[in-house]
Amino acid sequence: MNLTIYLAGEIHSNWREEVKVLSNNLSLPVTFVGPMEDHDRSDNIGEEILGTMPNPIFKDSAASDMNNFRTKVLLNKADIVIALFGEKYKQWNTAMDASTAIALDKPLIIIRPEKLHHPLKELSNKANVTVETIEQAVHVLSYVFE
Amino acid sequence: MNLTIYLAGEIHSNWREEVKVLSNNLSLPVTFVGPMEDHDRSDNIGEEILGTMPNPIFKDSAASDMNNFRTKVLLNKADIVIALFGEKYKQWNTAMDASTAIALDKPLIIIRPEKLHHPLKELSNKANVTVETIEQAVHVLSYVFE
Amino acid sequence: MNLTIYLAGEIHSNWREEVKVLSNNLSLPVTFVGPMEDHDRSDNIGEEILGTMPNPIFKDSAASDMNNFRTKVLLNKADIVIALFGEKYKQWNTAMDASTAIALDKPLIIIRPEKLHHPLKELSNKANVTVETIEQAVHVLSYVFE
Amino acid sequence: MNLTIYLAGEIHSNWREEVKVLSNNLSLPVTFVGPMEDHDRSDNIGEEILGTMPNPIFKDSAASDMNNFRTKVLLNKADIVIALFGEKYKQWNTAMDASTAIALDKPLIIIRPEKLHHPLKELSNKANVTVETIEQAVHVLSYVFE
Amino acid sequence: MNLTIYLAGEIHSNWREEVKVLSNNLSLPVTFVGPMEDHDRSDNIGEEILGTMPNPIFKDSAASDMNNFRTKVLLNKADIVIALFGEKYKQWNTAMDASTAIALDKPLIIIRPEKLHHPLKELSNKANVTVETIEQAVHVLSYVFE
Amino acid sequence: MNLTIYLAGEIHSNWREEVKVLSNNLSLPVTFVGPMEDHDRSDNIGEEILGTMPNPIFKDSAASDMNNFRTKVLLNKADIVIALFGEKYKQWNTAMDASTAIALDKPLIIIRPEKLHHPLKELSNKANVTVETIEQAVHVLSYVFE
Amino acid sequence: MNLTIYLAGEIHSNWREEVKVLSNNLSLPVTFVGPMEDHDRSDNIGEEILGTMPNPIFKDSAASDMNNFRTKVLLNKADIVIALFGEKYKQWNTAMDASTAIALDKPLIIIRPEKLHHPLKELSNKANVTVETIEQAVHVLSYVFE
Amino acid sequence: MNLTIYLAGEIHSNWREEVKVLSNNLSLPVTFVGPMEDHDRSDNIGEEILGTMPNPIFKDSAASDMNNFRTKVLLNKADIVIALFGEKYKQWNTAMDASTAIALDKPLIIIRPEKLHHPLKELSNKANVTVETIEQAVHVLSYVFE
Repeated sequence: MNLTIYLAGEIHSNWREEVKVLSNNLSLPVTFVGPMEDHDRSDNIGEEILGTMPNPIFKDSAASDMNNFRTKVLLNKADIVIALFGEKYKQWNTAMDASTAIALDKPLIIIRPEKLHHPLKELSNKANVTVETIEQAVHVLSYVFE
Repeated sequence: MNLTIYLAGEIHSNWREEVKVLSNNLSLPVTFVGPMEDHDRSDNIGEEILGTMPNPIFKDSAASDMNNFRTKVLLNKADIVIALFGEKYKQWNTAMDASTAIALDKPLIIIRPEKLHHPLKELSNKANVTVETIEQAVHVLSYVFE
Repeated sequence: MNLTIYLAGEIHSNWREEVKVLSNNLSLPVTFVGPMEDHDRSDNIGEEILGTMPNPIFKDSAASDMNNFRTKVLLNKADIVIALFGEKYKQWNTAMDASTAIALDKPLIIIRPEKLHHPLKELSNKANVTVETIEQAVHVLSYVFE
Repeated sequence: MNLTIYLAGEIHSNWREEVKVLSNNLSLPVTFVGPMEDHDRSDNIGEEILGTMPNPIFKDSAASDMNNFRTKVLLNKADIVIALFGEKYKQWNTAMDASTAIALDKPLIIIRPEKLHHPLKELSNKANVTVETIEQAVHVLSYVFE
Repeated sequence: MNLTIYLAGEIHSNWREEVKVLSNNLSLPVTFVGPMEDHDRSDNIGEEILGTMPNPIFKDSAASDMNNFRTKVLLNKADIVIALFGEKYKQWNTAMDASTAIALDKPLIIIRPEKLHHPLKELSNKANVTVETIEQAVHVLSYVFE
Repeated sequence: MNLTIYLAGEIHSNWREEVKVLSNNLSLPVTFVGPMEDHDRSDNIGEEILGTMPNPIFKDSAASDMNNFRTKVLLNKADIVIALFGEKYKQWNTAMDASTAIALDKPLIIIRPEKLHHPLKELSNKANVTVETIEQAVHVLSYVFE
Repeated sequence: MNLTIYLAGEIHSNWREEVKVLSNNLSLPVTFVGPMEDHDRSDNIGEEILGTMPNPIFKDSAASDMNNFRTKVLLNKADIVIALFGEKYKQWNTAMDASTAIALDKPLIIIRPEKLHHPLKELSNKANVTVETIEQAVHVLSYVFE
Repeated sequence: MNLTIYLAGEIHSNWREEVKVLSNNLSLPVTFVGPMEDHDRSDNIGEEILGTMPNPIFKDSAASDMNNFRTKVLLNKADIVIALFGEKYKQWNTAMDASTAIALDKPLIIIRPEKLHHPLKELSNKANVTVETIEQAVHVLSYVFE
């Protein structure tokens, strides 16, 4: 049984690498999918495909068409979703992806530092598991296969 | 036809009053529901009902049980959801309520100042309508009834 | 038992009036809802609420936000959908509303002149009933209540 | 991960070939499915299987039984739907297939020339992405795999 | 709490009258809906609305458009379905209505004489309750309100 | 807004009375529904309607047809479910009703004494709220309306 | 793409063999599943597993537990359902399987002799395709793959 | 066709071994999944991953996050669910898993000793099959493949 896992979260750091390395070390039978991690490419993809937009709002809207399309395709295929929150960035798209996972009845792990417990309390409460580190998240994953 | 509208968003200001007043002025046949607006009550409701919790995280978890319960009851009854975003506060619970509305196929209006267009781009893209002011949101509502 | 009926179709003629008059004559216990019938208002509603858009495509997109929002609210409340097709206009939005009704398991009546049977064949095939005149459509409605 | 893509649209030209060639050039891990592309066969399939029908309307109805059956089988298996609109033909069946994709929560790309933006505005608004050329559509597809 | 009950079954006898009388005697807060009970009208409704059909099969198909439309409208509104089977008639439409109720998660009572237990065994097994007489069916209904 | 609440739990004591009295004192706009509370009637209802069964297992099966039918009718109408667990009785039917509520996305409050926290841990974890007394449960309900 | 097809219908003749042979001749990439075809085994399976039942009704009920279990497992895996009706037997279970397919949005082909058009009219009307012979049904299947 | 089967039930004995051995003997094409069977590990997994909890109730809650996460992942992948009940232990989580299976329309076999027929009557009634021994359960499984 191989499971597909969608990694939702900011695309400014390469936290996904840590998830993959740790999962690989444990030989977990999982495949990871996620958003476009090149931040500039992600922001520009609308204009890259459709041409220059009249202003930043339309530029963002076009990019979101593409990015939401990609997310929907990959999230639809996911068996599990992991959503990471950090102290930087608004991360409303991360909250959206996590909430969508819950609504689609896909098991969800939230990773967040302890100091963010208060603003994340409602989302945490609806998620299946909330942990503080990537290590703990992978620990939860491996527990599924034991 | 009377429609029930869930007002999702921060509970630090009384922005909901403005929505209600404007809707009332237009005699829109709507009923508004929303979260507990007394911020301290909302944060303390877990301990108010279940007693003191060991630490702030458990306190938040207990409160979220109650608040998410209330939200689910009222959101389930809503025909429309309006979610307001502002520059203060993390508002991850607002993003969660808005995303849940989308997943439940409930029509959603997002209200956000223009300067927040970038971090809200993905959520805006999936919402039905995005406007900048409460006035515009009520304008959209009244358009439904004309 | 009062039923809500969504009338999908072009907003250039006042065909909905005929449906309402005929239903009224038979005292059918029904309530009719539908799109904004003032065609210019419908096309301009995006700019009316959000301000001037950079070009016609963005103008249309903004208007569609509002119009699709209205349709979703009202279609969600409908027990029955009637979709009228005529020889003028592309009517792709009508086809979309009719198809959405089918997907949502809402009983659908299609009204179309005989000469349109060929391009409408697939949609007709999935709809519950296809008739040629408004009179026949109302006849079908009244049959439900006998 | 191999994805199945349903190509909805007119069967008078061989536009699907272009989609397949461009996707192949990029070695995208996709499988394409679609309707019967032999237009006469598609129109006659009802009579081919069930025998001569009394008139063109019944002939069309029988053919639509078969064609809608085929579409439902293949669309059910699709992970993505691409719907192409052109200036010729009514294309109400294309609008129906596109709308069904949206209702089934399957990611949808609409390809349409700019001059059709107005009659397609509502459907475009509900689709995930709207582009003008097949090349742009394939560009969106490849973005999913990067 | 008033409940709507769909009475599925043959339209050759007036068995529904007995259900209504017995329920009335117990003052059960229920509303009954069902198919067109005038058998000839039911068979002819297609031609009545659309005109003469080329042969009996097309006549039946047109009538079924109307009758299935009516059933879907009323069954969608039902809280409970009662399906009666007797020794006469094929009753495949009754089996279809009963099965649809099960699939839509609507509580179902089957009424059938003991001697039909064998051909109805699979459907009985999936229904919530199987009884032999209308009296027993009404007894089950009244049990809900005690 | 009046809400319907299903009270799931043992039918050996009259704990539901306490819920109703406390809710009444607070004038909560709620309607309570639940199972047959006469325990012997509940156990005998199968034989009462269908006649004597060959052995206790068939007697139970017949009774469960009726009781599950009643539960499904009333649970389908519920906006909220409250499930009470106590130290006596197996209460597997209570666990079933509670789990069904969760699966149907109906907000659920579990009431259980603290000493039952261990065997109820998984169900508690999936429920929205877990409290220890009826008073606390009603406190949660009233919080929804403030 | 290999498709799974559930063959619903009487188990007194070996009509399924003809479907398999014809499909094989055309090398259709399909897998067929269906009910237990040994009629006595099918009727006795309840007693075979659980022991002798008190009377024929309980015997049938136990057998139906097993047979409906098998049908649900296999029908859940099916991409297409073919239901065959003949002049012998009540075939209410066949009507049930066909109706379940429709409710689960699985494409359905009904095979029935012309003389059964009247009692099957409602079910035929909701099915995707109705043909008269196995050959025609296989013809429809092969059309999907062309 | 290989089917995945979730084995729900107590984790104090190794009853699952018997299911696997018997299924293996019959070479059934099935894969078994289930909960963590090391009882202490299951109870401690919350603290193992997240650290010591303030008291036993929070310890149980954390463990249930992990265990319910694991169950949801594996139950989502299951084609069939078997739930075993015995005379020891409260088994409310087993009742929950069984009920979830029913709600998700996954075929369910309940194994329970005859003497537990009364407290399990409602759950048994909603399950597809109820047997008394593991042998009988495997017998039902093998019947699917014959």
